[in-house]
Amino acid sequence: MNNFSFNCPTKFVFGRGTTDQTGAQLAALGHRHALVVYGQGSVVRTGTLGRVLASLDEAGVSYVELSGARPNPEIELVRKGVELARNEKVDVILGVGGGSTIDTAKAISLGVPYTGDTWDLFSRAAQPIAEGKPPVACVLTIPAAGSEASDSCVITNDEKCLKKGLSTDLNRPELAIMDPELTFTLPPYQTAAGVTDMCAHIMERYFSGADAVPVTDGIACSLLRTLIAEAPRALANPEDYDARANIMWVGMLAHNGIAGVGRNLVPTSRAGGWESHGLEHELSAHDPKIAHGAGLAVIFPAWMRYVWRENPERFLAFGRDVFDIEPVNPEEDGVDITAEQAVADAVEATIDALQEFFVSMGMPSTLGELGITEADIDALIQTLEQNKGAEFGEFKRLTMEDARNIYMSAL
Amino acid sequence: MNNFSFNCPTKFVFGRGTTDQTGAQLAALGHRHALVVYGQGSVVRTGTLGRVLASLDEAGVSYVELSGARPNPEIELVRKGVELARNEKVDVILGVGGGSTIDTAKAISLGVPYTGDTWDLFSRAAQPIAEGKPPVACVLTIPAAGSEASDSCVITNDEKCLKKGLSTDLNRPELAIMDPELTFTLPPYQTAAGVTDMCAHIMERYFSGADAVPVTDGIACSLLRTLIAEAPRALANPEDYDARANIMWVGMLAHNGIAGVGRNLVPTSRAGGWESHGLEHELSAHDPKIAHGAGLAVIFPAWMRYVWRENPERFLAFGRDVFDIEPVNPEEDGVDITAEQAVADAVEATIDALQEFFVSMGMPSTLGELGITEADIDALIQTLEQNKGAEFGEFKRLTMEDARNIYMSAL
Repeated sequence: MNNFSFNCPTKFVFGRGTTDQTGAQLAALGHRHALVVYGQGSVVRTGTLGRVLASLDEAGVSYVELSGARPNPEIELVRKGVELARNEKVDVILGVGGGSTIDTAKAISLGVPYTGDTWDLFSRAAQPIAEGKPPVACVLTIPAAGSEASDSCVITNDEKCLKKGLSTDLNRPELAIMDPELTFTLPPYQTAAGVTDMCAHIMERYFSGADAVPVTDGIACSLLRTLIAEAPRALANPEDYDARANIMWVGMLAHNGIAGVGRNLVPTSRAGGWESHGLEHELSAHDPKIAHGAGLAVIFPAWMRYVWRENPERFLAFGRDVFDIEPVNPEEDGVDITAEQAVADAVEATIDALQEFFVSMGMPSTLGELGITEADIDALIQTLEQNKGAEFGEFKRLTMEDARNIYMSAL
Repeated sequence: MNNFSFNCPTKFVFGRGTTDQTGAQLAALGHRHALVVYGQGSVVRTGTLGRVLASLDEAGVSYVELSGARPNPEIELVRKGVELARNEKVDVILGVGGGSTIDTAKAISLGVPYTGDTWDLFSRAAQPIAEGKPPVACVLTIPAAGSEASDSCVITNDEKCLKKGLSTDLNRPELAIMDPELTFTLPPYQTAAGVTDMCAHIMERYFSGADAVPVTDGIACSLLRTLIAEAPRALANPEDYDARANIMWVGMLAHNGIAGVGRNLVPTSRAGGWESHGLEHELSAHDPKIAHGAGLAVIFPAWMRYVWRENPERFLAFGRDVFDIEPVNPEEDGVDITAEQAVADAVEATIDALQEFFVSMGMPSTLGELGITEADIDALIQTLEQNKGAEFGEFKRLTMEDARNIYMSAL
């Protein structure tokens, strides 16, 4: 178990009807004037935004609004938000939506105390500043990215064709309102992509370069088992409250860090090499219509099949804990295969089981289903190398040749 | 899954050598003058206190000391600490020790902003005050009580013969230094009692009156499996770092609330009826030589055997997830017992397995081993009724007659 520090100060207010408590919760934290950030679509249509704003009115929290947060949130809207937050002297940035909206709110908050251009913080030209940074709060409507409690914030710069993440404890929201009923209206594909993203957040940490950490690995696998049990129920009955609630809470735990502590190689860093996220990033950058979770459903199993021989024991432990898969014992079970083959079979069965779970939710299993063909791979590798350099990864270092092999294997 | 709120803002600095980072961590949080609270025994003897004080010196954090924190920490020392903290204008209360020391630090912190007698906060004559309350930090030396991140604080009033707990998020420490190497010198009995206490913290929440909550139940059971696997290793080799580290981290998770969210019947309350804690409390109050964990090792299984019929399914789920125990299927397995008997057998096997785990660590399984005889039970019931009223409990309401039956069954 490696040294680590962990600090997730977010207050979670979870459950039915909590949407209507947003204003009271903000007021209880001493806030009086909010910048409310949201997208343009479902939060308006479903009435969620209206409920949130009504709760602010009722609690005496005044606000200004900033709409237009989009998937792969863009720095230009962040800049606009920073100016608005400064001019209006708001004391909290409230994101109402999914990960992209919450990331927009986080980036605005980071930008307020920094006198230069907010992009500098993402390009690493400047460091984030704690003093004068207004806290972030959120009303989560799409469980997937885990931004409601994570230290992450990912912003896209269209002009520079860049997408950059900034991980710092300063990104942790102060308050997260988590109302599972808001997720009843999520389309099946988005539900499934969200669950896949959660699985990936857990597995990127599980398959780090660190040794086994029983307490953390046990939590990670139990979260995966919960997703595997609950996702089919939510898909079969979108208004199954308990299924939706379990999934929503797992989404937070999958990415707040608790499922990775002790697996980090450096005390201050996140566990894992995030190889699949790196490989997937190029897919959704190549075609913005590709949902991040859908890309991960293709890439993660492909990555696993390519790298498992680096640490077969890790994959056996994973198969055992998540899918109850044990390798056969050729001698005891009287099977005429080598011990090596028995391990390979068990690992293959494990990866198959994971992929079948993704497919059962309606996720793709090949790049072809995402509209990516062999002809696209050169372009993917080119941008991958720009983003990651010649090599990346922790469980196994991946060269661009390795990355090409993984993409090819997933066609 | 019931509505809940959860807020554990504690910063955890975990791992080898973190003891020596105490001063730097406090300084980074802006602290300059600490009240250092500790016991009289092992933290001095082992040199831990010296290391902590040296780290404060090095980081430029000045301090005053308050020694004498004892098991079942007493209000008189708390009063002394409050006066010292006020006079010295310290900006943080640092507990160096186990749960009793940390609870002393918490109570001092609660007392500072309150102008009356600190005991009023525990007797419920007054409410705790956030404003002006110095934060609490701790260097944990005994993993057991979970006080390093819990909302709990339990203080004894010798004069009034009372022991009162106060649960509030204000009790959450700001910083917890968790250095598993400090636990290498813990005697086996104390290690085992600590692990038993952790199990009890998890199980009190698991056996609440709420329905199953897969995400939370899964975490709870995975924490128990980790303890069952790691405790024998720590007992066999007290310097097994990984075993000690896993146990220490489980101890925090067992009681910070994460293993109970959604199982609470009221959004603002803790999950569970804490029946075994209530019953055990009278044992260690009756004879202060009885370790809380040792008392729980006797009481928890006795309580389980008495109440399981209230919700057999819950016990079957527990047996399945923690001990891989499945009831036989009389028809399929061709066994000539009723389905009811098959359930009873599986539950009994589950409780036996739990009790065997406690016994395997050197914990007692009978009140007799703790020096409690039938002649003591009247006195136990008398004080129990004073503390709990005529009835208490959530999984099953327990009358004083029920309590007597449980004590009798454990003789």
